[in-house]
Amino acid sequence: MTDPSAATGFSSITDTLDRLAIEVPSWAYGNSGTRFRVFGTPGTPRTVEEKIADAAQVHAHTGLAPSVALHIPWDKTDDYTALREYAEGLGVRLGTVNSNTFQDEAYKFGSLTSADDAVRQQAVDHHLECLEIMGRTGSRDLKIWLADGANYPGQNDLRQRQDTLAESLRTIYDQLDDGQRLVLEYKFFEPAFYSTDVPDWGTSYAHVSALGEKAMVCLDTGHHAPGTNIEFIVAQLLRLGKLGSFDFNSRFYADDDLIVGAADPYQLFRIVVEVIRGGGLDADSEVALMLDQCHNIEEKVPGQIRSVLNVQEMTAKALLLDREALAQAQADNDVLAANQVFMDAFFTDVRSDLAAYREERGLPGDPMAAFRESGYLDRIAADRVGGTQSGWGA
Amino acid sequence: MTDPSAATGFSSITDTLDRLAIEVPSWAYGNSGTRFRVFGTPGTPRTVEEKIADAAQVHAHTGLAPSVALHIPWDKTDDYTALREYAEGLGVRLGTVNSNTFQDEAYKFGSLTSADDAVRQQAVDHHLECLEIMGRTGSRDLKIWLADGANYPGQNDLRQRQDTLAESLRTIYDQLDDGQRLVLEYKFFEPAFYSTDVPDWGTSYAHVSALGEKAMVCLDTGHHAPGTNIEFIVAQLLRLGKLGSFDFNSRFYADDDLIVGAADPYQLFRIVVEVIRGGGLDADSEVALMLDQCHNIEEKVPGQIRSVLNVQEMTAKALLLDREALAQAQADNDVLAANQVFMDAFFTDVRSDLAAYREERGLPGDPMAAFRESGYLDRIAADRVGGTQSGWGA
Amino acid sequence: MTDPSAATGFSSITDTLDRLAIEVPSWAYGNSGTRFRVFGTPGTPRTVEEKIADAAQVHAHTGLAPSVALHIPWDKTDDYTALREYAEGLGVRLGTVNSNTFQDEAYKFGSLTSADDAVRQQAVDHHLECLEIMGRTGSRDLKIWLADGANYPGQNDLRQRQDTLAESLRTIYDQLDDGQRLVLEYKFFEPAFYSTDVPDWGTSYAHVSALGEKAMVCLDTGHHAPGTNIEFIVAQLLRLGKLGSFDFNSRFYADDDLIVGAADPYQLFRIVVEVIRGGGLDADSEVALMLDQCHNIEEKVPGQIRSVLNVQEMTAKALLLDREALAQAQADNDVLAANQVFMDAFFTDVRSDLAAYREERGLPGDPMAAFRESGYLDRIAADRVGGTQSGWGA
Amino acid sequence: MTDPSAATGFSSITDTLDRLAIEVPSWAYGNSGTRFRVFGTPGTPRTVEEKIADAAQVHAHTGLAPSVALHIPWDKTDDYTALREYAEGLGVRLGTVNSNTFQDEAYKFGSLTSADDAVRQQAVDHHLECLEIMGRTGSRDLKIWLADGANYPGQNDLRQRQDTLAESLRTIYDQLDDGQRLVLEYKFFEPAFYSTDVPDWGTSYAHVSALGEKAMVCLDTGHHAPGTNIEFIVAQLLRLGKLGSFDFNSRFYADDDLIVGAADPYQLFRIVVEVIRGGGLDADSEVALMLDQCHNIEEKVPGQIRSVLNVQEMTAKALLLDREALAQAQADNDVLAANQVFMDAFFTDVRSDLAAYREERGLPGDPMAAFRESGYLDRIAADRVGGTQSGWGA
Repeated sequence: MTDPSAATGFSSITDTLDRLAIEVPSWAYGNSGTRFRVFGTPGTPRTVEEKIADAAQVHAHTGLAPSVALHIPWDKTDDYTALREYAEGLGVRLGTVNSNTFQDEAYKFGSLTSADDAVRQQAVDHHLECLEIMGRTGSRDLKIWLADGANYPGQNDLRQRQDTLAESLRTIYDQLDDGQRLVLEYKFFEPAFYSTDVPDWGTSYAHVSALGEKAMVCLDTGHHAPGTNIEFIVAQLLRLGKLGSFDFNSRFYADDDLIVGAADPYQLFRIVVEVIRGGGLDADSEVALMLDQCHNIEEKVPGQIRSVLNVQEMTAKALLLDREALAQAQADNDVLAANQVFMDAFFTDVRSDLAAYREERGLPGDPMAAFRESGYLDRIAADRVGGTQSGWGA
Repeated sequence: MTDPSAATGFSSITDTLDRLAIEVPSWAYGNSGTRFRVFGTPGTPRTVEEKIADAAQVHAHTGLAPSVALHIPWDKTDDYTALREYAEGLGVRLGTVNSNTFQDEAYKFGSLTSADDAVRQQAVDHHLECLEIMGRTGSRDLKIWLADGANYPGQNDLRQRQDTLAESLRTIYDQLDDGQRLVLEYKFFEPAFYSTDVPDWGTSYAHVSALGEKAMVCLDTGHHAPGTNIEFIVAQLLRLGKLGSFDFNSRFYADDDLIVGAADPYQLFRIVVEVIRGGGLDADSEVALMLDQCHNIEEKVPGQIRSVLNVQEMTAKALLLDREALAQAQADNDVLAANQVFMDAFFTDVRSDLAAYREERGLPGDPMAAFRESGYLDRIAADRVGGTQSGWGA
Repeated sequence: MTDPSAATGFSSITDTLDRLAIEVPSWAYGNSGTRFRVFGTPGTPRTVEEKIADAAQVHAHTGLAPSVALHIPWDKTDDYTALREYAEGLGVRLGTVNSNTFQDEAYKFGSLTSADDAVRQQAVDHHLECLEIMGRTGSRDLKIWLADGANYPGQNDLRQRQDTLAESLRTIYDQLDDGQRLVLEYKFFEPAFYSTDVPDWGTSYAHVSALGEKAMVCLDTGHHAPGTNIEFIVAQLLRLGKLGSFDFNSRFYADDDLIVGAADPYQLFRIVVEVIRGGGLDADSEVALMLDQCHNIEEKVPGQIRSVLNVQEMTAKALLLDREALAQAQADNDVLAANQVFMDAFFTDVRSDLAAYREERGLPGDPMAAFRESGYLDRIAADRVGGTQSGWGA
Repeated sequence: MTDPSAATGFSSITDTLDRLAIEVPSWAYGNSGTRFRVFGTPGTPRTVEEKIADAAQVHAHTGLAPSVALHIPWDKTDDYTALREYAEGLGVRLGTVNSNTFQDEAYKFGSLTSADDAVRQQAVDHHLECLEIMGRTGSRDLKIWLADGANYPGQNDLRQRQDTLAESLRTIYDQLDDGQRLVLEYKFFEPAFYSTDVPDWGTSYAHVSALGEKAMVCLDTGHHAPGTNIEFIVAQLLRLGKLGSFDFNSRFYADDDLIVGAADPYQLFRIVVEVIRGGGLDADSEVALMLDQCHNIEEKVPGQIRSVLNVQEMTAKALLLDREALAQAQADNDVLAANQVFMDAFFTDVRSDLAAYREERGLPGDPMAAFRESGYLDRIAADRVGGTQSGWGA
């Protein structure tokens, strides 16, 4: 047993830890649920400004969440410049713009993959509008997650829809400005139950490779088949130069969208180990880390705080991995020694080191407690009365 | 290759086929969807009467669906006697009463398993109300499906909740009239994502065994872990005398609630083979067959018609299974021969025999075509204007 | 309900059916089993010639299996020219050469991905030897399936092994003759239980794309995560021009290697539909169809006969699919109609048409019965006494 | 963040930790592998005595493994009294007797479930012999794991086999002495690939409930469907009074039989939490903890040492769980607080406390290092030359 968390150990990783930034999604602060029920909570935001105010709390307490992803049309506003200034006034930036191709009545049978030209054009136009918004918000990434698929065998021409998708993506891609990127997310299933048009990393990779350098893959940690080795995909996409961004969350069964690290913290640790291994936390890395979760039953703002803290905790452990000892054990084919080096990093308790690290940076040592004591939840519950709480249908 | 569908073959199974009855759920005619979107359709029922009218269409075209399951509170009405007469006037009966413990704000953290006595009492009282309704509708079965569970490790005391559940069920069970039954459904996951309080047949079986003879297990074909051999569970529960009812549907991934037989018709065939093997289609069988599906993107009434036809088609194939030849091959450990007998039954085309069978009984040979040509969908689209379409939130 | 199997229907598909050819693997005739037990059978081949003799029986009875895949070193011989002539004398050709990187003591921790240069060179050299053998057998395809992977997190450097693999494959690829191909198989897991170096189609695709035109993906139908939509991958790889070959088998749980079509015949039907849709049965198609199965408890030769018949039966159904009606229903977004067209093809009973088709070609109408009556199994049981039965350890 | 590992915290759990005992299986020291390859290792035992000698090393270095499970016939010997004394001389006891119904040629199509009376009698007799051996070894538990099942639909009469199994088990059960128990293990799949005769805890529970008080369920942590919540089953079986024993190991995909805690240490922690919650570590508990693993590529003796240490480490964390704070958070439905209490226990680093704890008991603080430095592996590699290494076929 070695203990890499000795004082000298931890101090050696703080420079990299300082670079850790996790974007939070505006929609995490609105209500969400399952098809069975969406439970509301007092204080849930009614406007994009209130969502950003909530998101700013996460950053204020952790220093980890400097930007907020938007979802169009949920976060549409008349004046994006004002929104940008509003966010900056609260200490956060506007980040990735997420398109929505699953709620308009027109998209019942597909959007960018639709065989109906009018529907497809509507979906393409929606993305062009998103690009326009990105120009005003200063966002780099357009993230496309497609709900397109089929519930029954025979419903769609699987092959044709790939060609149609390629064409739609090309039209959008060609409108990207310098410095903008298109990130294409994949998902194993849901809401389509038989086939999904971008179901796996291979499909996303094939499309973004065909598009060009500004197109990248988005990996959502909850969007894989049972048993999939996600850290392998992370390593592979980094190797191929095509890992654009992460949607972090965790899962036991399907796309459960639970707090990242809650279901299997060791898996999150292994994922971060590969992110680091592949340069994803290097100073010049362009890999974007983001949360994409649903706080169906727990409080939303502290749910997000816990999430970014979980990523930070696993990152600290992963940075403490004794890569030299690991390389030696691997070279010796000493399976037990290699695994022990790995587990030793995971089982190193970094919580007090992280508390001290935070305090050195003017942050609360225990962000969860600090937020709880701040009275923010009571305040928004009292203030945000009337109006319509935000949610997926908003 | 043997062909058991010869004229004499088919005629030998019609008596059993005549007994086939599949209850349809009132909620299948309302709107449903995923957490991402519930698409509406013109003509969707606004009232329980309209749901029953739609259900009656299924029976009128197939002769297979003589009863309609109700869902309380979605189908609450002031006068159940009138509702019963209304249904009977349309040629169908009121069937199983399904309770709802997932939509009231109070049930956010549990219902019959809640640690909060007031919540638990509310949930128990709801079931007692269901029993009262059953008295008036003439229903035999109270079906309990619980959404109760947890999203995060530590959230609940897993052990305590089983004890609480046992106590709640006992209170309800003790109020059953003679001839009434409690059927306890199990489900692998959703809407809870870490633990579910009745997640598998073993749990349901342990509870209903403890309760007594009037308590039975309900098997929903979509509520199992990936790879589960469902026909084995059917055989086992029939052997144990505890298979109360089925919720039929099909799935590729999770609880997709697709049309039964659509995802894996051979699995449905195997399930029906075990139903027959275990006496589930015998004249004195008390096993209830029911659909529980969501027609998110396809038309609802024909979706239900297709569903009961699929069950009928697989039942005909299963009845044509040459059990004598099968038993011989099994006794000989002739794996290939046994499998061939099995597959031969499955691959026997019974469609034209079934068409003739239907016509002999005054039904349309092709119920799907007959319904399409009936103009019913256009009629309800024209008639049912205004009001609020039924759905899970109704 | 339409019935596309009318006489005119079936006659329209026979030209394509005539092109159907399914390679059988030499190792299917040897003993196989699980880690718990390999059961032997009287008559199991002791030599490569006896395996080929068994394989020739499959072709003789079905006309479907004109070639036999070899496995090196299991099928090594001193004189490949003689072996080729021997096979041709029995009416079959030698086909794909399969390398073996899982049985030599040296490969305990990897072969083409090994961090140990000597081991890696041994593995590369083995493939170069295979290429040499291919020159003599007249084989087109070198199939590489790698057992390489890790059982424990930390054991391997996931990223490094991909680079090493790319380098190894490049060395082998560069030695391919004109007309030769390298097909790279992927597998979800087993024998490695934590990570596998070529675990999914995306990884195989990334490697073969980098290699060049003579490198293709091999899709084994049993090598996917639970719930994976395999026909989607088929459609995608055909679209990308990178589907080299199939290993057919079926599965309920893991890589069960059961008779193709035995676990889920509807899935096999859907796969073949996409093969046809993507040109895989066109006259100029270079997609190779092959079996890769283990007959652990059933008789091996009739197990193989049943397998090629299952593929033929599903192919006939898939060819009978009314693609015009399907396209119309798809264009109308008529989900139920599209699904019905699909199911109608699947439920069309082609067995007697196929029997007649076979007889027209001088083959037995019922190959399973004809083989059983041939007495071949008794003959080889009597003849093949002594020696060592072939198996995976041979 | 609370830190329950303060000195006073750890000292409060040592009494319970002292009770922790994990039986090790004799077969873990022999060679094992996959169907692709069994790699041998220098020093692998050739006899049951050598296996016990290896097992004694685990106990000598950890104080955690006071007994060794036997496997019949692999560990058959002429003189069990001598074997018992041999073991005791090395400081360990003989424990559970495991029967073997998967290797005899007769069991190809089943053993206790066989439709062939002679085969079934042979299997019953084998268990009666095991009972006789138990009398001489002083073992309490007869563990039955059945490989019985089918590879193809139709192969077996699923229902009949349950009745046959019940009858076979009854015959064996009736021969149990006072103080002896029958523990019936279940397994999701493998080596049977379509149906398994005891596939889930429900089936095992139904059988042992019917048998009586001396029959219990054995839960192997690797024998479940993907996504199964194992700690729920632990809680349920303890509640029902039917959890007889554990087979510990870990898995990513199937029954991988990896080192317990290696795949998902948090899951192991949650399992142990429920063991403790249900009284499984109480002074009067009769729950047996055992390893059942395969060290295919890593060294066997240190693989076993690592395994029992992993269980000890997770047990210490689970004992440190602040159950009072947890109960309060649960009562408050404070999901985040409850989860944090849970995670805080898991992330508490108990490694140095455990090292001190061991040293206080005269054991090495770092058992892995101590064993490595002992030179034992070199010694057995040098000594155990010639003979046949033990393995599953031995």
